[in-house]
Amino acid sequence: MPSVTDMLTFEDAAGLFRRQALTPRDYLEQAIAVIQAREGQVRAFACLDLGQARAQADAATERYRRQAPLSAIDGMPVGIKDIVDTATLPTGMGSDLYRGWQPAADAEAVDAIRLGGGIIVGKTRTTEFAIGRATVTTNPHDATRTPGGSSSGTAAGTAAGMICAGLGTQTQGSIMRPASYCGAAGYKPTWGVLPLRGVHPVAGSHDHLGVIAHSLDAAWAVAHCIAQYRPTAASARLQAPAGPALARTPVRRVAVLRTAGYAELDAAALQAFEAELERWRRRGVDVVEPDGDAPLAALCRELDSIPALSVEMVSHEMRWPYWGYCQRHPQHVSQKIHDLVAAGLQVSPQRHQALCGLRDGILARLEALAAGYDAFALPAASGIAPQGLDNTGSRTLLVYASFLGVPALSVPLLRVGHMPLGVQLLGRRFDDYRLLCRAAWLAQA
Amino acid sequence: MPSVTDMLTFEDAAGLFRRQALTPRDYLEQAIAVIQAREGQVRAFACLDLGQARAQADAATERYRRQAPLSAIDGMPVGIKDIVDTATLPTGMGSDLYRGWQPAADAEAVDAIRLGGGIIVGKTRTTEFAIGRATVTTNPHDATRTPGGSSSGTAAGTAAGMICAGLGTQTQGSIMRPASYCGAAGYKPTWGVLPLRGVHPVAGSHDHLGVIAHSLDAAWAVAHCIAQYRPTAASARLQAPAGPALARTPVRRVAVLRTAGYAELDAAALQAFEAELERWRRRGVDVVEPDGDAPLAALCRELDSIPALSVEMVSHEMRWPYWGYCQRHPQHVSQKIHDLVAAGLQVSPQRHQALCGLRDGILARLEALAAGYDAFALPAASGIAPQGLDNTGSRTLLVYASFLGVPALSVPLLRVGHMPLGVQLLGRRFDDYRLLCRAAWLAQA
Repeated sequence: MPSVTDMLTFEDAAGLFRRQALTPRDYLEQAIAVIQAREGQVRAFACLDLGQARAQADAATERYRRQAPLSAIDGMPVGIKDIVDTATLPTGMGSDLYRGWQPAADAEAVDAIRLGGGIIVGKTRTTEFAIGRATVTTNPHDATRTPGGSSSGTAAGTAAGMICAGLGTQTQGSIMRPASYCGAAGYKPTWGVLPLRGVHPVAGSHDHLGVIAHSLDAAWAVAHCIAQYRPTAASARLQAPAGPALARTPVRRVAVLRTAGYAELDAAALQAFEAELERWRRRGVDVVEPDGDAPLAALCRELDSIPALSVEMVSHEMRWPYWGYCQRHPQHVSQKIHDLVAAGLQVSPQRHQALCGLRDGILARLEALAAGYDAFALPAASGIAPQGLDNTGSRTLLVYASFLGVPALSVPLLRVGHMPLGVQLLGRRFDDYRLLCRAAWLAQA
Repeated sequence: MPSVTDMLTFEDAAGLFRRQALTPRDYLEQAIAVIQAREGQVRAFACLDLGQARAQADAATERYRRQAPLSAIDGMPVGIKDIVDTATLPTGMGSDLYRGWQPAADAEAVDAIRLGGGIIVGKTRTTEFAIGRATVTTNPHDATRTPGGSSSGTAAGTAAGMICAGLGTQTQGSIMRPASYCGAAGYKPTWGVLPLRGVHPVAGSHDHLGVIAHSLDAAWAVAHCIAQYRPTAASARLQAPAGPALARTPVRRVAVLRTAGYAELDAAALQAFEAELERWRRRGVDVVEPDGDAPLAALCRELDSIPALSVEMVSHEMRWPYWGYCQRHPQHVSQKIHDLVAAGLQVSPQRHQALCGLRDGILARLEALAAGYDAFALPAASGIAPQGLDNTGSRTLLVYASFLGVPALSVPLLRVGHMPLGVQLLGRRFDDYRLLCRAAWLAQA
C-alpha cells in the first residue's frame, strides 16, 4: 500500500527537477498512478481535473528546464479543500446547497498557489461546511476508519501519496485531527496569517486556513508561498526569514500540556506519547511537566475551560451565514448545523464580547509562559482514528489553539498498532516559523 | 422634484413609528412612490424586490405596534450596493461576468441589517466591480450629470428619496464622491470596522464598507447596527457609546487640508468651501490653515504623494481576483480593469511592502497631528458632479483617507448653482463616532 512514507518527498523531487533528473510532469504521473490505484477506496476528491493538472505540470517542467521555477512549490501537486473557491472546478462545500456550484474567482490562497506554480490536482472532500455531516472519505491506513474531519480529503489524499500537500481549514480541530489520524504533517498558522477570502466561513474568530502536507517542509513551503503572494495584516507580523526553507533547530525545553482532555486517550495512545517524550529527553530536551510546575499547572486548568467557551463563541458567530441557510433551505442543512445555529441564537452579543475577553486573558497568560519554552506539547488527537466514517473524532485537545489563535502543528511521530498519531506542538503567535523549525528537529530520527 | 430635503427623515419617521402615528409600511410606500416617479430617469437600482420589502415593512409595523423594534434602523428602507451579496436578490457586480449571479448567502453586513429590521428595497447600481466601467445611473439633481462612482445607485437613490440609506464601498473615493455629487451624507468608517465578508473585493488594503444616508444620524445608525450584530476586530476598538444616537458636539478647532489636488477645483466650488469655513469661524471655530502652520503644511505635502502610491498598491492587489477574470473571461472585463491589472503586475511584492511602510509613516504623522484638532476639513470632491455619465469624477481629494484608513465623512453642506457639494471631514482611526458628532454640529444651520 503506497503511503506518504513511500513517496519521494517534494523537497527531494524539487532537487531532481532542478538537476533535470525528474520532471514535474513525471512526478505528477506518479501521483496520478496512486490516485488511479487508491481513489476508489480512499475517496479523497470531490472532483479532479487531471487534464489541467497535466498542463500545469508541463508548464512547470518547461520552467525548470529554463531554470526559472516560480517558487519553492513550483510543480508541487496539491489539493484544495472543497470549501475553498476555485474558478476552474466546482466548490461544493460538502453541502447539498452548493452541489455543482461554480465560483467565478479563485480564493485568494488558491490564486497564490497558482502564482507559485503549484499544480491543482482537484478539490478534496470536506465534511458539510467543514462543521456538519461527515463525508465518504476513508482513512488510507484503514478504510474502516475515519480520516478525521473536516479536512478529510486533504489529509487522506496527502497521506495516500495522491498529493504532496493541500489546503485545509481549522475552526476547532479540522487540520490537526485529520493530519494526526492520517499520519501527515498539519500546520494551523497563527490566526489571520493566511487569507480567508474565498473560503466559506464557519466562525470568524476561530477560522484558520492552513496546510496538511507530507512533510513539515512542504507545509511551510505552501504557507510561505501564500503569505508571499497574498500577505495579510497578520502575515506581515510573522517572524520568519524571506526564504521558504526550514532549519532544524535544536529544542532545549518543552512544556507538556496535560488537561482533563487526556481522559479521552486510551492507554496505548498515551503510552506512545509518553515514549516520544522519553525519546526527546534522551536527546537532551528538558521536558517540563505541569505536575510540580505551578504556573504550567494553572494554565492547563485554564485550557480546560476552552472547549465549552469555544462552542458558545462558534455557535453564536455561525448566525451568519447559517441562520440564513436554515431559514431558506432547511432541508439542505444537516440537523447538526440546525442545532448549532439554534444554540448560538441563545448566546447574546454581550456574552460573545465577554467570551472574547476571557480568550484574551488566557492568551496573555499562555504567551507569557511560552516565553520560557521552545514549544508546548500534547497529543494531536484524542487517540487514533475511530472506527466508522460518521464520527470524525474529538476536538477536545485541538480547540485550545483554535480558540487562542496560536500556531499549532500535528507532527506525525507516533504509531499505535497500524495507525498513526500526531504530536501537537503549540507556540507563540507569529512565531510559526521557529515552531516549525523546532518540530523538524524533534521529528529527526 | 422630491429629494432628500423634502423627505421625512428616518429619525423623525421612527419617532412617529414609536408613537403609532406612522407605520413603516406607509413610510415605505412613500419611498416606493418616489421610486415609481423617478426611477425611470435616475436608474438607481440594478433590481428591486418591492414584494419582499413590503412584507418586511409589515413585519416592522407589527413590531412597533408591540413596541418592540429590533434596533434603531427597524423599518428603514435601505439599498444594497450590487457588489454586496444578497441571498434574496441577484448580485451582478456591475459586470457582465456576474450578470444574474445569485449568491446563496447574504454578505455579513446584509445579514446584520436584516437582524436590525432594515428593509432591503433592492440592489443599487455600481460601476463595474466598483472600479471599472461606469453605470447608467443619473444624478437626481441633474440627469445630464454623473451621480459619481462607484456607489452610484446608493447615493442617487438616497438623494432622490427612494431609500433612507444604503451600503456603499470605498477603495479610493467611491463613497465620498457620489455622496458629495448627490448631496447625501457619506460615511467611510475606519478601515476594518465594518465586515467585508460577502463583498466583492477590489484591493484589501483600501477596501472599506460604509454607508450613504440622507442624514449623518441615519448613516451612523446603519453602521452601528452592523457593528453591533457583526463585530470585527477593528469595530471592537471603536470609541463609541453603546447607543445608536449621535450627539451634536461643538467643534473648537479644525485643520484645513490644502493639497495640490485643490488645483482641480473650479472657482465656484472653492468659493463655496471658503464660505463654509467662514461660517464656521463665525460660530467660534478656530479654523487652522496650513499657511503659517509648518507641521500642517508638511502633512499636506505628504498627502500629495498618496494618489500615486495608492494606484500602485491597489493595482498590485487587484492581481487577485482580477487577473483570473482577465485570463479566463477577457471579453467580459473592461479595458480599464485590464489596464489596472497589467500595471499592477509591474509592482513587485517588495515594492508593495515598501508602500505599506510609507503609508504607516504618513498615518503616524497624521494621527499625531490629529490629536490637536477636532477634525481635518477639505472638499469631498474636486467640484460638483461633471457632465455626462462616463466620467464618474476625480478621486484626488478622497484617496488620502482611503489609503490611510482613517474615518471620512462627506457632509452635504455646500451648493454650487443647482448642484450639491460635500465638505469632507477626516478624523483619527477608531474615533468615528466623535467625528460624526462634530460633523452633526457643524451641519447645524
